[in-house]
Amino acid sequence: MGQSTSRRRVTKVREAGVSERVDTLAVEEPLEIRVDGRAVSVTMRTPGDDLDLALGFLTTEGAEVATASACADNVVDVTVHAMPDLQRNFYTSSSCGLCGKASIDAVRTASRYDVGPDSAPVDPEVLVTLPEQLRNAQRAFAKTGGLHAAGLFRDGELLCLREDVGRHNAVDKVIGWAVQRDMLPLTGTVLQVSGRASFELVQKALMAGIPVLAAVSAPSSLAVELAEEAGLTLIGFLRGTSYNIYTAPHRLKPLD
Amino acid sequence: MGQSTSRRRVTKVREAGVSERVDTLAVEEPLEIRVDGRAVSVTMRTPGDDLDLALGFLTTEGAEVATASACADNVVDVTVHAMPDLQRNFYTSSSCGLCGKASIDAVRTASRYDVGPDSAPVDPEVLVTLPEQLRNAQRAFAKTGGLHAAGLFRDGELLCLREDVGRHNAVDKVIGWAVQRDMLPLTGTVLQVSGRASFELVQKALMAGIPVLAAVSAPSSLAVELAEEAGLTLIGFLRGTSYNIYTAPHRLKPLD
Repeated sequence: MGQSTSRRRVTKVREAGVSERVDTLAVEEPLEIRVDGRAVSVTMRTPGDDLDLALGFLTTEGAEVATASACADNVVDVTVHAMPDLQRNFYTSSSCGLCGKASIDAVRTASRYDVGPDSAPVDPEVLVTLPEQLRNAQRAFAKTGGLHAAGLFRDGELLCLREDVGRHNAVDKVIGWAVQRDMLPLTGTVLQVSGRASFELVQKALMAGIPVLAAVSAPSSLAVELAEEAGLTLIGFLRGTSYNIYTAPHRLKPLD
Repeated sequence: MGQSTSRRRVTKVREAGVSERVDTLAVEEPLEIRVDGRAVSVTMRTPGDDLDLALGFLTTEGAEVATASACADNVVDVTVHAMPDLQRNFYTSSSCGLCGKASIDAVRTASRYDVGPDSAPVDPEVLVTLPEQLRNAQRAFAKTGGLHAAGLFRDGELLCLREDVGRHNAVDKVIGWAVQRDMLPLTGTVLQVSGRASFELVQKALMAGIPVLAAVSAPSSLAVELAEEAGLTLIGFLRGTSYNIYTAPHRLKPLD
């Protein structure tokens, strides 16, 4: 298993002067994900929880994973029951040419779970504590300032936190952690991420049956459209006691 | 040409109360990049400067582009003189299995330019103005708070600024802008990015002959290793008057 941080000499320029210091960096290394021996993806990631990353990635691409084995440093080989070609779905479902609607249709076809009926009430007073909980948990082992984080919560309790140089990887690691524990669909959970909410993050949440996605920063247009279509509650700009609700606000308990 | 922002009704929860407002979102839509009619990549991006995005992407993947035509909304078709398979390089150059060293070797093999001899002196007093220049230029047309930015500077002057929901896309758009103007290699320039410095961003800078990459946030370990190997000056945590120099500090003029 590789290290997730490394040390390096760096020249620090500050108002007070220039100094040479040893600094901590987030490690980035390629991971090759194989399905039944065949390479399907190479992703740049922070080493650690590689099996979770592979399982989360494949699951959110629509695969039904069977067994997995880390066969070497930087390579994970996974055996699957079924492996739909999401890229192919993506193209063939597109009658209007390549567009956001086709992307949304492809996810809807591929997803085994329907988060729409998940009542999963969210207490606003709990919601606003999530970013701080995530940061506190990160502080416990992060020293680099260069990592994205994803945290899975249920009733305000942190179930799993993962960090990575890649934002999608952090989410894949969290979902892979749950796959290994046979916890899907992740009904009644909230996925909190440190950055923006893109289409792909909403897609990953839906493929894992997560009904609520909360981001510290902005969502994209297509993230909002997919969330709306699927009935996922999408929260953005969650900072301090403020936030925006973009879709499915019914899950938020009314403020007293 | 699609819009780069869209409007949407959103529920804003603030200390002062809950309100319904119309808010601006960054648009995210898939773009299919074709080479001689064959799809080679689908990327989620903010519409606009699609041709630049395709040219920058293919150039930084090692292609020698010839002509390009946007053949439809969300599809760009490019004719190339030469199209090396970087992914293949990546695998076959790896005698040690998949590792960071193999990634670095692959970039070194693919790059037509050597930034090492580029003297490109950088004035520290100019350097510290770049993030603010970038933000000011962004303010002129960004309203969403959800976009990554990349700016190309020479002698402290902004040559080209691009924004995108994807950080790599913003850099590809800047480089594609320069490709269209036959400006490569981009000797004596500084590429300023709004977020972190990953391996791929250093790779893209090298493939365009850019000798200096400055990031507002942290670099990864592999970004630093590649920059060191290639002689690119890598700056991180550039905030206010402070910054860290990770590699090739000789380009920075001594402070008075």
